[in-house]
Amino acid sequence: MASNTFGNVFKITTWGESHGKAIGVVIDGCPAGLELTENDINEALALRAPGRSPYTSPRIEADQAEIFSGVFEGKTTGTPISIIIPNKHADSSKYEPIKDLLRPGHANFTYLEKYGVFDYRGGGRSSARETACRVAAGAIAKKLLSHNGIHIIAYIKQISGIEAIIETQNIEKLRSATHQSPIFCPDTQATSAMTALIEKTKSEGNSLGGMVEFIAFSVPAGIGDPIYQKLEANLAHAMMSLPASKGFEIGLGFGSIAMQGSEHNDLFTTKNHKIETETNNSGGILGGISTGMPITGRVAFKPTSSIMKEQKTLTIEGKEESLQLPEGSRHDPCVAIRAVPVVEAMASLVIADALLLNRCVKL
Amino acid sequence: MASNTFGNVFKITTWGESHGKAIGVVIDGCPAGLELTENDINEALALRAPGRSPYTSPRIEADQAEIFSGVFEGKTTGTPISIIIPNKHADSSKYEPIKDLLRPGHANFTYLEKYGVFDYRGGGRSSARETACRVAAGAIAKKLLSHNGIHIIAYIKQISGIEAIIETQNIEKLRSATHQSPIFCPDTQATSAMTALIEKTKSEGNSLGGMVEFIAFSVPAGIGDPIYQKLEANLAHAMMSLPASKGFEIGLGFGSIAMQGSEHNDLFTTKNHKIETETNNSGGILGGISTGMPITGRVAFKPTSSIMKEQKTLTIEGKEESLQLPEGSRHDPCVAIRAVPVVEAMASLVIADALLLNRCVKL
Amino acid sequence: MASNTFGNVFKITTWGESHGKAIGVVIDGCPAGLELTENDINEALALRAPGRSPYTSPRIEADQAEIFSGVFEGKTTGTPISIIIPNKHADSSKYEPIKDLLRPGHANFTYLEKYGVFDYRGGGRSSARETACRVAAGAIAKKLLSHNGIHIIAYIKQISGIEAIIETQNIEKLRSATHQSPIFCPDTQATSAMTALIEKTKSEGNSLGGMVEFIAFSVPAGIGDPIYQKLEANLAHAMMSLPASKGFEIGLGFGSIAMQGSEHNDLFTTKNHKIETETNNSGGILGGISTGMPITGRVAFKPTSSIMKEQKTLTIEGKEESLQLPEGSRHDPCVAIRAVPVVEAMASLVIADALLLNRCVKL
Amino acid sequence: MASNTFGNVFKITTWGESHGKAIGVVIDGCPAGLELTENDINEALALRAPGRSPYTSPRIEADQAEIFSGVFEGKTTGTPISIIIPNKHADSSKYEPIKDLLRPGHANFTYLEKYGVFDYRGGGRSSARETACRVAAGAIAKKLLSHNGIHIIAYIKQISGIEAIIETQNIEKLRSATHQSPIFCPDTQATSAMTALIEKTKSEGNSLGGMVEFIAFSVPAGIGDPIYQKLEANLAHAMMSLPASKGFEIGLGFGSIAMQGSEHNDLFTTKNHKIETETNNSGGILGGISTGMPITGRVAFKPTSSIMKEQKTLTIEGKEESLQLPEGSRHDPCVAIRAVPVVEAMASLVIADALLLNRCVKL
Repeated sequence: MASNTFGNVFKITTWGESHGKAIGVVIDGCPAGLELTENDINEALALRAPGRSPYTSPRIEADQAEIFSGVFEGKTTGTPISIIIPNKHADSSKYEPIKDLLRPGHANFTYLEKYGVFDYRGGGRSSARETACRVAAGAIAKKLLSHNGIHIIAYIKQISGIEAIIETQNIEKLRSATHQSPIFCPDTQATSAMTALIEKTKSEGNSLGGMVEFIAFSVPAGIGDPIYQKLEANLAHAMMSLPASKGFEIGLGFGSIAMQGSEHNDLFTTKNHKIETETNNSGGILGGISTGMPITGRVAFKPTSSIMKEQKTLTIEGKEESLQLPEGSRHDPCVAIRAVPVVEAMASLVIADALLLNRCVKL
Repeated sequence: MASNTFGNVFKITTWGESHGKAIGVVIDGCPAGLELTENDINEALALRAPGRSPYTSPRIEADQAEIFSGVFEGKTTGTPISIIIPNKHADSSKYEPIKDLLRPGHANFTYLEKYGVFDYRGGGRSSARETACRVAAGAIAKKLLSHNGIHIIAYIKQISGIEAIIETQNIEKLRSATHQSPIFCPDTQATSAMTALIEKTKSEGNSLGGMVEFIAFSVPAGIGDPIYQKLEANLAHAMMSLPASKGFEIGLGFGSIAMQGSEHNDLFTTKNHKIETETNNSGGILGGISTGMPITGRVAFKPTSSIMKEQKTLTIEGKEESLQLPEGSRHDPCVAIRAVPVVEAMASLVIADALLLNRCVKL
Repeated sequence: MASNTFGNVFKITTWGESHGKAIGVVIDGCPAGLELTENDINEALALRAPGRSPYTSPRIEADQAEIFSGVFEGKTTGTPISIIIPNKHADSSKYEPIKDLLRPGHANFTYLEKYGVFDYRGGGRSSARETACRVAAGAIAKKLLSHNGIHIIAYIKQISGIEAIIETQNIEKLRSATHQSPIFCPDTQATSAMTALIEKTKSEGNSLGGMVEFIAFSVPAGIGDPIYQKLEANLAHAMMSLPASKGFEIGLGFGSIAMQGSEHNDLFTTKNHKIETETNNSGGILGGISTGMPITGRVAFKPTSSIMKEQKTLTIEGKEESLQLPEGSRHDPCVAIRAVPVVEAMASLVIADALLLNRCVKL
Repeated sequence: MASNTFGNVFKITTWGESHGKAIGVVIDGCPAGLELTENDINEALALRAPGRSPYTSPRIEADQAEIFSGVFEGKTTGTPISIIIPNKHADSSKYEPIKDLLRPGHANFTYLEKYGVFDYRGGGRSSARETACRVAAGAIAKKLLSHNGIHIIAYIKQISGIEAIIETQNIEKLRSATHQSPIFCPDTQATSAMTALIEKTKSEGNSLGGMVEFIAFSVPAGIGDPIYQKLEANLAHAMMSLPASKGFEIGLGFGSIAMQGSEHNDLFTTKNHKIETETNNSGGILGGISTGMPITGRVAFKPTSSIMKEQKTLTIEGKEESLQLPEGSRHDPCVAIRAVPVVEAMASLVIADALLLNRCVKL
């Protein structure tokens, strides 16, 4: 089982509740000899941090990860890397008044059905806070990939009805435009429209859905495994394990439904004496294995469940009640924004794992 | 690794190439005491069989599964159930002329990149033939679920631009309408439009994409696991491991992007003294765990890669060539149709596994 | 769980009951490009076959394995290798009279307690017949190891009180002496004494215990994994999963209890500019990882449970009865003998797996 | 792979080096609703602590475990339990002078061969310090087992040539006698002889081997899994993953080699209308599944590798050198003693895991 573990060879195990002492992740299977500092982790965490822009939750977490094991004299040793991120400023007292209310769109009902007990403070284990651990582990996977010339980026492709128009040829430009946007959207015009909509929606006590796109550049052909460990299956698993994610697609995804085979098939060609495809409708994967073209996919996020608007609900015992989140509750008006670095991290974890596994397939 | 294995406790391992002697599946972890006959398997296989209607591939496989182990005096014994399905009528000679050509949209390029060797006959291991094993194993999972009052159905929701309108309240009616359609589409009007389009497209040597929807009824609340074994993550993994699948969504999926939190949140209510939700936008899952409402999802399938139209391509060595599939090649004009029983099987495997695992969570 | 699967990357799944249609094994994770024929498998099976000598069970199985997948044009393709071994001459009628009796030393009681149902014919799944599948898979692992210059041999070290004196320097001589002995014991004098004892014991309707020793030559230093996947832990797991095995030791094993640290510690030295140890008390492993010295271990097998002597027992319902195996029952007087090729197979599987995994540990 | 993870459903992942900031363990799969405090863990750790008696290492670690997650209002919640144990008094400066020397019987050579890098301080990851994490996790498994009426005890059975004579009928008496002995040996006479020998050996700068025996009482019949997850295979795996363990046996183990089938077979009988066996030579397991009789096994530990005596060795580069551990080095003269609570913990982990898995086997 191990429902808190992800990966085959490059394996992560996360633990911790939103309002406990800390959260953490153990990375088992990172090769020895990789240079790694706490700064590598903290830079990645900073991107995910709330309060980074007015369009995410105003909580100031200032996450500072500590590496507790697996690194010696600045390099990984091949033993498990334990990273711990203390939970600061966790004031759970304000959740007291609503602790016996079922929260629409939340997991407290289902956790109670499953376990009969629930650490309700800040959403406990079901909180998106767990994704900080994924980002920490993902930062290591990214270093490993970068060492192999592979680079991955994610960004906001859509918020509510507003879709960004994005030029994806140049990864450096793409990364810089993404990080310059307060909402990780490399299209400046779309950023303006999106931020305006977010502000309006937030002022109404409501929330918005969004879509995150990711691209992995320079993944060599032949990575990934057939049948049940297909690269797209593992990516789908990774992305659909994120809080609030409701859909995943690779390449043209749902858009391929309306196409004909002759349009959708990517024709093979040679470029610089290397075989590649003229188009990349498949999203860089055929039969679960990378083609050498960029791997691209998208993740749909529902609008944040926690809204300031009053909602009709029930108590745990089934009595009708009204739910009003306490004044000053800190929630993202659009979870998709903060999911951007997490999607990047999950894609990195999946591809790093596949890359390591690939060393075993040929004589 | 084990890229040919799926599941945690109810675990399947499949093997076999399209034009080898046989394909097969080993099911490990099926509880003892379940009544099981070869007929149970063969009925399920018959639904997946090509030649079932003019709208699928005309190959006549007439799959006859044999149970080789794990069943004694009509009941499962708790030991592995080995099912073998012989490959009949496999004439691989006609693939000879094209064996050195890269096939657009196919996996022969990526398998060669990965393994340096490829059993090209009929697509070898990358052929959709492997899914017969999933259907065989799924038939057992379905019996197990049915024993627990859980029923799962899949059907065609869309082909190319034509979307079916489907009444999902009554599972018996839904199943019967689905099975009466030659293309597993319970909407008779849509069926007519779809079959007309399929015939036209086929005559042009082309192919179509499609969408399959599934619903699992009466899954009790509390099934599934948080974080990395979320029910929707495992379903996504299952579906995205299918040949030609390009997207997965749960509940409203990509449709939830354009919604606001106050619209999307399913409000809790009581019905017959049981807590449920008024709407089911979430698709029956919150935080990775079932809510007790129907679990619904959708899978996008690209248009079949094998088309009769001539295509520009390369040889394995990178020389330009033209690919013309041999006369009499048997290919589905729309893979989504034959994927219907496979999607049903995969959903059954995921939910049966989660159900068994759930026995371990409480004291 | 997957109690019928063994290994991490080089993974086997076995299935089948003693008196079913067949038994089989699926090998997942064998690298592509390895030359493999059915003959490779059948030669290994011939060594395990009963009837090979008068000192093993006189059943004539004449196992003929068939490869059903994973091999193309004489080489492995990286896809699962399915091997099926039909069960011939399986006459289960003679087990009818004793099917409701608990058999001392057998698993029918425990299977019934666990599953509530038991395929009693020939011991069903609990029969040592399953080990033929291990030998078949082991034959492939041995080819892979041999390709890497690693060679493994097992032989009888002890039967009852008779211990063999064995010269282990030269693997070719050791293998030849082992295969010349009708009981896999390279010491000819011990062979004589052992065979005499076996004949006497058999004539009394009784059985004997024994010990099998194995040595893996030329395993490079650095193979194996620390903590929970230690090479000796995986070897112990492998050997203690064999029917009738009751003990495992590595290096000096239980003999090291009576030693002092200064005696037991193997001192480092150089030979041909390579670091090795002067002695090899550790059995070629330190901290779970190979030292480069031969890996040596031993497995204890209890005397065969099935004896012709009458035994007091109970029926399944708990009524007192007497158990007399039917005339002509075919049982090994000493299971350790037939376990020799199985121990060799299991050691090969463990070391092949560790070798493949080792490719992932360094940058 | 995950070489730092153990277990199937009740799963532990450990991390940390001997002289890092801390060591820790994440327990994933503990059922919800179990009462648990830090005191439960610390009591178990106190038994393992060095300095507990003059016969173990005089280091004063005073381990204080902290629970960081998975427990809410005094009960487990079903989410991962993270336990962290700070490393106190870790002075690694004295290892500086010997950091480039290969240490006979130690893992620094093999870790360097495998990873190319090694955190040598205090043995790093290869240190027995890691076993404190096993004891912490084992304390939870023991609570779970105790809740199910199952009790497990381990004790010293032998040190060097001195064997204890132990009455195992009454677990309460056995436990109390064990804990009264400074070396966990319930036989007071043997304790005297053993402690005298330990003192003498220690004064000579040498070390001793030993044997630990364990018994699990009241494990119901039907627990454990056939073939590759046999209870004895998992126990063997667990015990052989311990530092310095060289052998494992179940029931009569190596002693069964010299027996005949008619002696070794445990005959079935009824007691209080329940089926059990007259003798328990099998050690409570048949075919990998528990019989309902006490499960008993033994583990052989080599003499401690770290001795104060000067030893001939090599530098990492292969130059001859002499190794003299620094004055005041703290090492156990007999590792078997401190292994007693660790063996108890590992047996508890294996049986708890099997117990949980057993809920999945029957309809």
